[in-house]
Amino acid sequence: MEFASDNTSGTAPEIMAALNAVNVGYAPSYGTDPVMDRVRDMIREIFEAPGAEVFLVNNGTTANALSIAAYCQPWGGIYCHETAHVQVDECGAPEFFVGGGKMIPVRGANGKMTPETLKTALDATPQGDVHSVQRGVLTLTNTTEAGTVYSVAELVALCAIAKSYDLPVHLDGARFANAVVSTNASPAEMSWKAGVDVLSFGGTKNGCMGVEAVVLFDPAKAWEFQLRRKRGGHLFSKHRYLSAQMEAYLKDGLWLRLARVANEKAAALEATLLSVPGASLMFPREANMIFANMPRSTHRRAMAAGAHYYLWPHWVTLDGPEDEPASARFVCSWSTTDADIDALAKVMRGRD
Amino acid sequence: MEFASDNTSGTAPEIMAALNAVNVGYAPSYGTDPVMDRVRDMIREIFEAPGAEVFLVNNGTTANALSIAAYCQPWGGIYCHETAHVQVDECGAPEFFVGGGKMIPVRGANGKMTPETLKTALDATPQGDVHSVQRGVLTLTNTTEAGTVYSVAELVALCAIAKSYDLPVHLDGARFANAVVSTNASPAEMSWKAGVDVLSFGGTKNGCMGVEAVVLFDPAKAWEFQLRRKRGGHLFSKHRYLSAQMEAYLKDGLWLRLARVANEKAAALEATLLSVPGASLMFPREANMIFANMPRSTHRRAMAAGAHYYLWPHWVTLDGPEDEPASARFVCSWSTTDADIDALAKVMRGRD
Amino acid sequence: MEFASDNTSGTAPEIMAALNAVNVGYAPSYGTDPVMDRVRDMIREIFEAPGAEVFLVNNGTTANALSIAAYCQPWGGIYCHETAHVQVDECGAPEFFVGGGKMIPVRGANGKMTPETLKTALDATPQGDVHSVQRGVLTLTNTTEAGTVYSVAELVALCAIAKSYDLPVHLDGARFANAVVSTNASPAEMSWKAGVDVLSFGGTKNGCMGVEAVVLFDPAKAWEFQLRRKRGGHLFSKHRYLSAQMEAYLKDGLWLRLARVANEKAAALEATLLSVPGASLMFPREANMIFANMPRSTHRRAMAAGAHYYLWPHWVTLDGPEDEPASARFVCSWSTTDADIDALAKVMRGRD
Amino acid sequence: MEFASDNTSGTAPEIMAALNAVNVGYAPSYGTDPVMDRVRDMIREIFEAPGAEVFLVNNGTTANALSIAAYCQPWGGIYCHETAHVQVDECGAPEFFVGGGKMIPVRGANGKMTPETLKTALDATPQGDVHSVQRGVLTLTNTTEAGTVYSVAELVALCAIAKSYDLPVHLDGARFANAVVSTNASPAEMSWKAGVDVLSFGGTKNGCMGVEAVVLFDPAKAWEFQLRRKRGGHLFSKHRYLSAQMEAYLKDGLWLRLARVANEKAAALEATLLSVPGASLMFPREANMIFANMPRSTHRRAMAAGAHYYLWPHWVTLDGPEDEPASARFVCSWSTTDADIDALAKVMRGRD
Repeated sequence: MEFASDNTSGTAPEIMAALNAVNVGYAPSYGTDPVMDRVRDMIREIFEAPGAEVFLVNNGTTANALSIAAYCQPWGGIYCHETAHVQVDECGAPEFFVGGGKMIPVRGANGKMTPETLKTALDATPQGDVHSVQRGVLTLTNTTEAGTVYSVAELVALCAIAKSYDLPVHLDGARFANAVVSTNASPAEMSWKAGVDVLSFGGTKNGCMGVEAVVLFDPAKAWEFQLRRKRGGHLFSKHRYLSAQMEAYLKDGLWLRLARVANEKAAALEATLLSVPGASLMFPREANMIFANMPRSTHRRAMAAGAHYYLWPHWVTLDGPEDEPASARFVCSWSTTDADIDALAKVMRGRD
Repeated sequence: MEFASDNTSGTAPEIMAALNAVNVGYAPSYGTDPVMDRVRDMIREIFEAPGAEVFLVNNGTTANALSIAAYCQPWGGIYCHETAHVQVDECGAPEFFVGGGKMIPVRGANGKMTPETLKTALDATPQGDVHSVQRGVLTLTNTTEAGTVYSVAELVALCAIAKSYDLPVHLDGARFANAVVSTNASPAEMSWKAGVDVLSFGGTKNGCMGVEAVVLFDPAKAWEFQLRRKRGGHLFSKHRYLSAQMEAYLKDGLWLRLARVANEKAAALEATLLSVPGASLMFPREANMIFANMPRSTHRRAMAAGAHYYLWPHWVTLDGPEDEPASARFVCSWSTTDADIDALAKVMRGRD
Repeated sequence: MEFASDNTSGTAPEIMAALNAVNVGYAPSYGTDPVMDRVRDMIREIFEAPGAEVFLVNNGTTANALSIAAYCQPWGGIYCHETAHVQVDECGAPEFFVGGGKMIPVRGANGKMTPETLKTALDATPQGDVHSVQRGVLTLTNTTEAGTVYSVAELVALCAIAKSYDLPVHLDGARFANAVVSTNASPAEMSWKAGVDVLSFGGTKNGCMGVEAVVLFDPAKAWEFQLRRKRGGHLFSKHRYLSAQMEAYLKDGLWLRLARVANEKAAALEATLLSVPGASLMFPREANMIFANMPRSTHRRAMAAGAHYYLWPHWVTLDGPEDEPASARFVCSWSTTDADIDALAKVMRGRD
Repeated sequence: MEFASDNTSGTAPEIMAALNAVNVGYAPSYGTDPVMDRVRDMIREIFEAPGAEVFLVNNGTTANALSIAAYCQPWGGIYCHETAHVQVDECGAPEFFVGGGKMIPVRGANGKMTPETLKTALDATPQGDVHSVQRGVLTLTNTTEAGTVYSVAELVALCAIAKSYDLPVHLDGARFANAVVSTNASPAEMSWKAGVDVLSFGGTKNGCMGVEAVVLFDPAKAWEFQLRRKRGGHLFSKHRYLSAQMEAYLKDGLWLRLARVANEKAAALEATLLSVPGASLMFPREANMIFANMPRSTHRRAMAAGAHYYLWPHWVTLDGPEDEPASARFVCSWSTTDADIDALAKVMRGRD
């Protein structure tokens, strides 16, 4: 009954096998391994972006912070949803890597900013006025932190606004695979064709051991990115072990198959949770996460029985009346099983 | 008809005289001049703080950024009112000097945070959770950016909350003199007795040429502060010219006399503005600034006649219907005259 | 014939097996996995340091930069040997993480500073003078970048000087295991008993896939270190895969066995290289690296035959007279074989 | 008998008069004052650089650090003479403003680097190698910290090397006026015509109260510079007082007249010092500073009699045998008088 996060799951068997397979003899270090050459080609093909540059790092915070830093001056404003991971869950990593930038939270229901809320935030930053930070970069998250998914049309609209303000766009795609599966759009449509300049393409949460690709659709920043990566301590010496994970992840569409499982299990879990008396969704369930209000009594019973998931946001507690709902987050991954869901259903319903 | 800011005014005659007087012969540099010794003593006496350390810098942004940096780790959250100068008018100086900190805007009417809004912001920063920035420092502004003034009781209440969260308190006192005059409280009551650890004590906006004192009520940070000042390029070589300004400013209560003029002229201007048909205050007028809504026709007439003041906030424009009010800020200083006010009154009333 | 670096070698079988073994089911993330608890205990026991705090990161640059940053203020001088990895091979990572510190190179033959050269450098930094950076931290490397090893007595002497200047000491132990094997001293003697406050304890170069432990002998910095780690993008989500590597590395002395192989093979290679006419050592060979001058003709022949190693330092080239020696670095690792050495010997001697 | 520094002298009467004169009524703030428009034009004319951009700041450390930061990426190497003010006297300001850059000291006799020592340093920074900092910017000082002066030909030669390595050039001209007077070359020849991209044009040490101009010969960096200035706390609100100093300083060649006095007095002092038995110069005296070795007995006598100057470098003390020479620095300024020199001569010679 593990629904705490997609990072408590393990490494998918195909990826583990690739790590074992690559562990033979010597290999050039620091990203010059031949596997990396193949990874670069695969990503270019998957994204229909033959000119893109690709670099691997170990986790999402790193991919985000380095990408944002490559596109934002130290005096830049970083526009993000007010619940974005970069804003609330990275201990100031973007500000640190940028050299003192300012996060500018943008509002919007269901974890999504809208053209209107984005424009409001942009217009509130006076440009050409030396007293204010300047517009730096837009960073979107898809799948969002609320478990919802921006459609291609929504991405296009937000990126168009960014472009009209001369703003580059970063996409935090820690759960990019889940968004692609959810929309059924192509990776290119979900990224550069919509106007994204740089993508954090997640692997870790979706079955890898620990690897994310940063895809620079405009390769002009490639050398700067490499220097920032090295200087940030993020250039792996035995790089083949990052490459091998990513190669296996991409091969034969494994990344999409894993995400499809996660999304499907979440759909099943959603149905299960909503069958609990007093339960309701906080946001539409569109990928592999469910945010739901449920009676405190239900939470107590489930947790007592060993279910793992987080009350959400962090300040919610189980203190309070039994029948008053408390909100929580449930995450499914590639390794979630029907048995897990059934077990949770049982303890929540309290019959057995 | 100059009401744009208190920094368009000049240097008070007493202070200019002191600059001329100190311009004799040689003097030790970098803050070791004998005038500085007297300044330190005067500030200790005025603030009833014999153990305080005092340093001079050239402007308010510097005083704020260095003070905040001395009290906030790079991963710290800097709690400020959402309209604070440090948040909207310093081009990210606090984030830069802190090394990548995060400003955490706190709400509240009339430019003031309240115990409730402060507590809400503090509680929304999960402590002991490595994914979040940690609580760093509280920074208040008095006189606030809305021209209102925190009373001693309000300061005490906010500082008490900060202390209960183990948070040091910085006070941006660019217009500290106006607040002291407004409340009639003592400098000590308006600072360390209320719980302030470090004060930006403004001189520039109140008749100095360009000097602010940073008063460290807890001298433990004194050496660090000096290193930060030097490293930030803020240690004056010919320091006697900062010292002399501050000495004259403090001598015989000049600083309070100058602020009293500014506040009194603002009271007179307030009455004048409110006599304009369709005019209304945005915030209570408590010191030397007035924020007022006035018909666009009035603004047009006044500006055409050469009146200087800013529509406020920066995104307000004169586009729009004649009779629809637009908000504006009017600032009085030590050098504002009744003639200035009368002239503005005339062009605003449109008679003559 | 791979002697380019110890990071072109793979992952030792015992460590790979541990990664496979830990890849079962779910595990708490971000360093709260049970394997990490065991790792912490093992390191405390191995180092006879029950109060030490232990954290895992992915590579040596990270371990060094985070450790130095935890012990050095932004205005601090970082004393290191002029050929130290932190000075010449990390693209300014220490300066970045510290927030603008200054590396202060210390001289000394054979890659080692001496009490005299260290004292000279320390005395050249005027303390209590705000115009100068202040003394920040001493960082030593053992095994040094020249392949030599500081004895316990040498470490004790250098740390004693540091302490007499109130300076904390960091030890870059990317090849700590090779130094321990070389001296036959205990890990404690080679670290905290000599005066080291924080150790980068290397795993990657000695058979791990990518993991280093930072050992804080004084746990006072533990929380700050964790915040720096997170903020630097260095907190692994699926942390069990770091823990498992380190557990296997430490278990039953594997780390020492692997290093012993590397050192022994290097001893054999040294003998082989010195048998080449015109060859001579640049520095004493004391661990797993050999720096040797050899005729350019020898290098050409070896490289043409597929031998991998670096001319050293980076500005040395094969341009020049055949018989003029060019200096080079040869590195052995846990996976170096006698066959590798024999093959190199053959092509260097040019007989076949 | 004040020879400690040119920053212990006061403000020249013409400049003080200008400050008094500008202290009338209101003036636009933050650099938009009309005096600044005139200053910009004057500097463009003096430097024969109609396209240059000009900004004023309060001191030399600031001018240097902001200029270097505008031209150097965070991962850049800053090439400077090993005794440069930016390296030894600014508490790491360049590293701080750059965001973690690395100072790369270049050697050379008499406070000057040479084409050879510069090339050696540049070649020791491996480019295109992500492990190393990259070449960032060359910063020269003229008048140098050793009191010597680079000739136009020397500047041309050094800048040519920088350009051949694609390196921009900054010139720390805290004593630029003294160098111009010394060489009799034009300001243009001593700056952009030689290859300088950005100049810290000093005023403070040469009779101003506290002002330096940064002259950007390539205006492409102008906006970035302004943001860095604001963010660094270096944008004066009552800017007219900086402008007025600079205007008076430039008017009718005052800056050159003041520097000429300083240089001439130094020539006279040099002769005086060398007449002391046992005295010798450390470096050629070419501007307003003299570095001389003199018997400790002479220093003791002079200091006991109230002479102010520094033993140099900072670690020299008067401990030691009477007749053993100790090195010292003597600085003349616009306000040095013959009487000062005569008085020093008398006490040094010990007759009276």
